[in-house]
Amino acid sequence: VITITKIFNFCAGHRLHLPEMSDSENFELFGACSNPAGHGHNYVLEITVSGNVDPKTGMIIDLKDLKDVVTREIIDQVDHKNLNCDVPWLSGKIPTTEVFADAIWQRLRENIFSVARRITLMKVVLRETPFNVVEIT
Amino acid sequence: VITITKIFNFCAGHRLHLPEMSDSENFELFGACSNPAGHGHNYVLEITVSGNVDPKTGMIIDLKDLKDVVTREIIDQVDHKNLNCDVPWLSGKIPTTEVFADAIWQRLRENIFSVARRITLMKVVLRETPFNVVEIT
Amino acid sequence: VITITKIFNFCAGHRLHLPEMSDSENFELFGACSNPAGHGHNYVLEITVSGNVDPKTGMIIDLKDLKDVVTREIIDQVDHKNLNCDVPWLSGKIPTTEVFADAIWQRLRENIFSVARRITLMKVVLRETPFNVVEIT
Amino acid sequence: VITITKIFNFCAGHRLHLPEMSDSENFELFGACSNPAGHGHNYVLEITVSGNVDPKTGMIIDLKDLKDVVTREIIDQVDHKNLNCDVPWLSGKIPTTEVFADAIWQRLRENIFSVARRITLMKVVLRETPFNVVEIT
Amino acid sequence: VITITKIFNFCAGHRLHLPEMSDSENFELFGACSNPAGHGHNYVLEITVSGNVDPKTGMIIDLKDLKDVVTREIIDQVDHKNLNCDVPWLSGKIPTTEVFADAIWQRLRENIFSVARRITLMKVVLRETPFNVVEIT
Amino acid sequence: VITITKIFNFCAGHRLHLPEMSDSENFELFGACSNPAGHGHNYVLEITVSGNVDPKTGMIIDLKDLKDVVTREIIDQVDHKNLNCDVPWLSGKIPTTEVFADAIWQRLRENIFSVARRITLMKVVLRETPFNVVEIT
Repeated sequence: VITITKIFNFCAGHRLHLPEMSDSENFELFGACSNPAGHGHNYVLEITVSGNVDPKTGMIIDLKDLKDVVTREIIDQVDHKNLNCDVPWLSGKIPTTEVFADAIWQRLRENIFSVARRITLMKVVLRETPFNVVEIT
Repeated sequence: VITITKIFNFCAGHRLHLPEMSDSENFELFGACSNPAGHGHNYVLEITVSGNVDPKTGMIIDLKDLKDVVTREIIDQVDHKNLNCDVPWLSGKIPTTEVFADAIWQRLRENIFSVARRITLMKVVLRETPFNVVEIT
Repeated sequence: VITITKIFNFCAGHRLHLPEMSDSENFELFGACSNPAGHGHNYVLEITVSGNVDPKTGMIIDLKDLKDVVTREIIDQVDHKNLNCDVPWLSGKIPTTEVFADAIWQRLRENIFSVARRITLMKVVLRETPFNVVEIT
Repeated sequence: VITITKIFNFCAGHRLHLPEMSDSENFELFGACSNPAGHGHNYVLEITVSGNVDPKTGMIIDLKDLKDVVTREIIDQVDHKNLNCDVPWLSGKIPTTEVFADAIWQRLRENIFSVARRITLMKVVLRETPFNVVEIT
Repeated sequence: VITITKIFNFCAGHRLHLPEMSDSENFELFGACSNPAGHGHNYVLEITVSGNVDPKTGMIIDLKDLKDVVTREIIDQVDHKNLNCDVPWLSGKIPTTEVFADAIWQRLRENIFSVARRITLMKVVLRETPFNVVEIT
Repeated sequence: VITITKIFNFCAGHRLHLPEMSDSENFELFGACSNPAGHGHNYVLEITVSGNVDPKTGMIIDLKDLKDVVTREIIDQVDHKNLNCDVPWLSGKIPTTEVFADAIWQRLRENIFSVARRITLMKVVLRETPFNVVEIT
């Protein structure tokens, strides 16, 4: 199996809290992540696809195409945004790294065919900090 | 000259905007950084001090003392916070990397003597992203 | 499959040698790693678990709980220690990266249930240097 | 399953182009990578093998042996070289990251037995830039 | 003194050789860097400027302006290029890291005023590999 | 001013303690670093020199020469060694990062002329961990 991965950087703000709970209950559940005025991160996003290596071009996919679809569908919509209120496809979701990575996975699976029908989305890795990482396969 | 540097990680949210200007004027001036609902970063903070190496202990300063004062005076007050509204010593300031780094420099110069009178604050480096860095000397 | 990974740093000393062999035989087998007075490393430890994302909290596990159990069971017992003589659960073992990673894997599999019964230990990655890495799955 | 990975750095030049196409057709297909005079990269190569941990030595393989075979079969032949014309085992191939990684995989599978018969090549990761990565398993 | 630094990535090819010398003489002088068909690197370029922090905007310079001038004057002209023949302002120069960094310094000193008259170019850092770095101040 | 820096990796063991003090007194002074059986680190060493750029070769110094002298005088003597007892030029010294960096500085100032008379040692940076750094200028 051969895969190719493109790595992206973006920053965003978020707050972990459940609206049905009080600030102190949210603090007990989410700790400092529930700070009412929010905080944020420099996220690193790694998108991995597999496919056949084209015998003529030597490429699984033109990386520029992969970059374009991920930039249009994900990066442009979350970079310098607040994940709690600025991103329609996160609406009503709590923006933990797990939920955010899963939403990216769902969204790319639906859109990646627009650039290359023969490739398969294999892995999404989302690094919230240098020390916390979520991976979906 | 010999210096020792301790490096810290924290995350925070912020928004760059001037309240006397409209959203569109703020966007023209600050770009995506003026997004009304804010965003955030994983900051890296490097604190450099100089002093004489104690001939007995071989140390300029006990790094634990340096860690304690920076944690108490800076990290605990900004980590997982919103720089626009949660930090008293940034109140009324626009939280660009330049202004934020300068506020850290001023605050540490006043407080670093509490742990070690004979050391001098030499440099503050604040990395907002892996690509944007402010340094004060 | 969704996983979450927490990354830890610690430092430790060790020496690779077999007591039944001479220093020159140990040197032939382990090279510079058999230096009698020992040496050491800054290790990086990556602990990956999987589980269901709680529909309410959006989390597989509270990362603070994962941090606490790994800190208590592993980091506090090996950080700034000598792996040849200071760690009971490495007693009688030769502290290569392979053996050390395997001992961490065994120890965490037994203890990770104390914080979260529904999660599964998926992967342990132990980086001895930036260039040498062992992974257990 | 336990694996051990050794990470290598080297630099090389290359140009992506198909000789049967014109410069403008190559530019349309490969973009800036088809620049006629070529360009280059600092590659990072990660070689992962699995095997049994020797109960006496605590090692899957002596890392020096793994380093020697990869250095002799790969690094010495590509470091500071032009991948389009200096490397016999890439002759006639277009040196994309995919094709290059596959050639390394094929070549190591054939040669890794010379140092250790009981180990298996599990993974080759080739990083062309910090943002583009190919993995073969 | 307060400075702000913007960090850029690009890749390029080059060959170190003196046309008046034979290949073997060039090899003796430049080693593997004189390989006739060339090689290349992923360069990292750090551009540091100083200036007054604008009391209204909190910025030394709009980083977008700094990014634009460096991209136009440097990155667009060297990225995916061969430094020996594709870059007019390196024409006739031997593209060592020292000479390349100096040419960037000279070129930026002349052009940086186009975006911001009140700032001063303070430092150019050029990383040829993770292990070789040239700095001009 | 133009400088060139070469970056080296090595690992070593050490223990911070004063023989005239008890273990508990040493622990109070040095904390976990005084663990009797020692520990260790992956050190990163950055050696910076300045000089004139040779108008013919475009180089301040042949980096291979700089690598050779630092490898011979420093790396080969400390890599995989115990800094408390294996290194003659650290004998009787307490191997803090400050003292160790200073000893490297003194030793290189005396030896760097053997390879290149016209260069000046400008800076020694010694990273004990990713978070603790000493610099001598």
